[in-house]
Amino acid sequence: MKSINLLGASGSIGTQTLDVIREHPSSFSLHAFAVGKNVEAALDIIREFQPKLVSVQNKSDAELIKMEYPSIRCTYGKDGLVEVATEDGGDIVVNAVTGSLGLKPTLEAIKLGKTMAIANKETLVTAGHIVMEEAAKYKASLLPVDSEHTAIFQCLQGEYAKNIERLVITASGGSFRDKTREELEGVTVEQALNHPNWSMGAKITIDSATMMNKGLEVIEAHWLFNIPYEKIDVLLHKESIIHSMVEFHDSSVMAQLGTPDMRVPIQYALSYPDRLPLKSAKRLSLADVGMLHFQKMDLERFRCLHFAFEAGKAGGSMPTVLNAANEVAVQAFLDGQITFLEIEDIVEQALLKHEKIAHPDLDTILEVDRETREWVHSLVSHSKRK
Amino acid sequence: MKSINLLGASGSIGTQTLDVIREHPSSFSLHAFAVGKNVEAALDIIREFQPKLVSVQNKSDAELIKMEYPSIRCTYGKDGLVEVATEDGGDIVVNAVTGSLGLKPTLEAIKLGKTMAIANKETLVTAGHIVMEEAAKYKASLLPVDSEHTAIFQCLQGEYAKNIERLVITASGGSFRDKTREELEGVTVEQALNHPNWSMGAKITIDSATMMNKGLEVIEAHWLFNIPYEKIDVLLHKESIIHSMVEFHDSSVMAQLGTPDMRVPIQYALSYPDRLPLKSAKRLSLADVGMLHFQKMDLERFRCLHFAFEAGKAGGSMPTVLNAANEVAVQAFLDGQITFLEIEDIVEQALLKHEKIAHPDLDTILEVDRETREWVHSLVSHSKRK
Repeated sequence: MKSINLLGASGSIGTQTLDVIREHPSSFSLHAFAVGKNVEAALDIIREFQPKLVSVQNKSDAELIKMEYPSIRCTYGKDGLVEVATEDGGDIVVNAVTGSLGLKPTLEAIKLGKTMAIANKETLVTAGHIVMEEAAKYKASLLPVDSEHTAIFQCLQGEYAKNIERLVITASGGSFRDKTREELEGVTVEQALNHPNWSMGAKITIDSATMMNKGLEVIEAHWLFNIPYEKIDVLLHKESIIHSMVEFHDSSVMAQLGTPDMRVPIQYALSYPDRLPLKSAKRLSLADVGMLHFQKMDLERFRCLHFAFEAGKAGGSMPTVLNAANEVAVQAFLDGQITFLEIEDIVEQALLKHEKIAHPDLDTILEVDRETREWVHSLVSHSKRK
Repeated sequence: MKSINLLGASGSIGTQTLDVIREHPSSFSLHAFAVGKNVEAALDIIREFQPKLVSVQNKSDAELIKMEYPSIRCTYGKDGLVEVATEDGGDIVVNAVTGSLGLKPTLEAIKLGKTMAIANKETLVTAGHIVMEEAAKYKASLLPVDSEHTAIFQCLQGEYAKNIERLVITASGGSFRDKTREELEGVTVEQALNHPNWSMGAKITIDSATMMNKGLEVIEAHWLFNIPYEKIDVLLHKESIIHSMVEFHDSSVMAQLGTPDMRVPIQYALSYPDRLPLKSAKRLSLADVGMLHFQKMDLERFRCLHFAFEAGKAGGSMPTVLNAANEVAVQAFLDGQITFLEIEDIVEQALLKHEKIAHPDLDTILEVDRETREWVHSLVSHSKRK
């Protein structure tokens, strides 16, 4: 039986983590969890899973929960998140919090040597250098949760890292994969949100269309698997059936495949190194799929991926700028303030403007993140479309 | 440094095994080897690799070699094969002998607990029940050499056997994959020998066209991985890029991919559990390949595959009959004595005629093999085409 501390329990990864726990009551239990403002979800989760500790964003919500469930410890705010992450008795911490809020809980849990299942992008994109150093120091295991990284992680089981020739991260190409740059000029938010393979949140769907999502995954893969950027390729594969691959130096390539179902990588992180049945998952039938397509990635067509490679190679504070600028720009696009192609322009400008800090600590990362967001906000509010 | 005892050194797998040893002089050395009648090849191999022991088929050839290389031990015949297999100092035995001749050397080497790299089909097809029992008893490792089984073996690294949902063996479909049964009526030997992906010997190319090759691989996979036939699927995949796959019970599928190059699986067997660089191997570029195709396998179209599944499930002496009848029938087709479709008919008749022996020992297997060959020979010599 493994006990789980879950951060971000009411989000997409969070609720699917609860699905996995629910499917395997004799293997997993929910030990502690945190949500943001969704008190209803928190109450439902408490009722069903009877955890020891709960954290919510606001003090008033925490008090409300305490009144309803006086026997359960309830805390709140940023400290509450850290408390849930570090709570004694939890064997695995699933960090599915969105944004840089996820950084501190990860680092504090790592210091306790906990096993981390990481679904929080910022953890590796902005603080990869700190996280990996601390994880090595405190012997904490880092397990990937998203489909590309779990694919690579699964391909590496039973293998020696020294034998890796390159990682091949597949990319569906997003909603606009067949459009030229000219055709991208006037695309709408509705068109951008129509992802062909995965049903995801708005932010990540736009990131798929700009290929920034893949860029962030490249940076995460760099840290997680300790592989130089020169050995990471991105391959267009519109069916998203092959989730990613590893080529070894004997020319052998290992791949992990499956239907799109985030419960599979979540469950793998929880059950690792074992696997558990997932009866409700749809089985892959390649005979039914019929064909898989592959295409070289065009870094001029997908400029955000190019920026991500460059920011990753530059290192230091650059990936933080990349990620923060992109987040604000995507929100501005969703809000109708800028065009789709202006997302790229804004990210590029933010990177050009920023003076790199070589080895930022956690506070510096958070400061660069805040400054970048402010700068992009002010840029957007002066933009022609506003 | 691993020392290798190589049986069948002048054949296709044998010469490629020598290529691998040649590419890694600090990792591998040739300790002992056996060839059949190819004395020239034997002399070349002695000159280059300076092994301790050599075996050839005939006594006179052995004496000839002894005269030329008095310092090297030289033996001959069936006993010579066993001597090479069991020769002290060899860490790995590569059995690349063709036919039932390969059985005894395998079993004797297993009794010494040697690691076996198996490229001899009969070892598992006809004597799987004995070989696996003995291997378990004497703690001998069995490593696959052909591309499908090495793919499955690689997919299983770091995994638990209990979690396997099914094995998916891919099949190119051979030279006639797009032909209907009606179109197969009048196909010629030349057409059959024109395999789309792999350049192989005549026998195995015909076996690819009839799908018997895949059937024998299914039986081998059954024994090698201890998986019931109900959990082994064959999938048509004309590009032969995915060499085979394993589906786990969490719905995750692992696959091994590569360009067609037998040195990769041979080297993997020798270097296992490590990998070594194979610089001369062609790298897989899925972007260049562009598309991979998959199609359900039709057991009515490919009757030999159906027979193999049935013979495998029946067990006992049936796979021996399947294999022996097929070998003689294929040779009769190559010799112009029977039509392509008559290969299937002969195999079917041989299976129908044979009365199953449930737990044949080695002598019984060799006897059934001999009887079946004789019976098919007499059938063919009375056939209409003769």
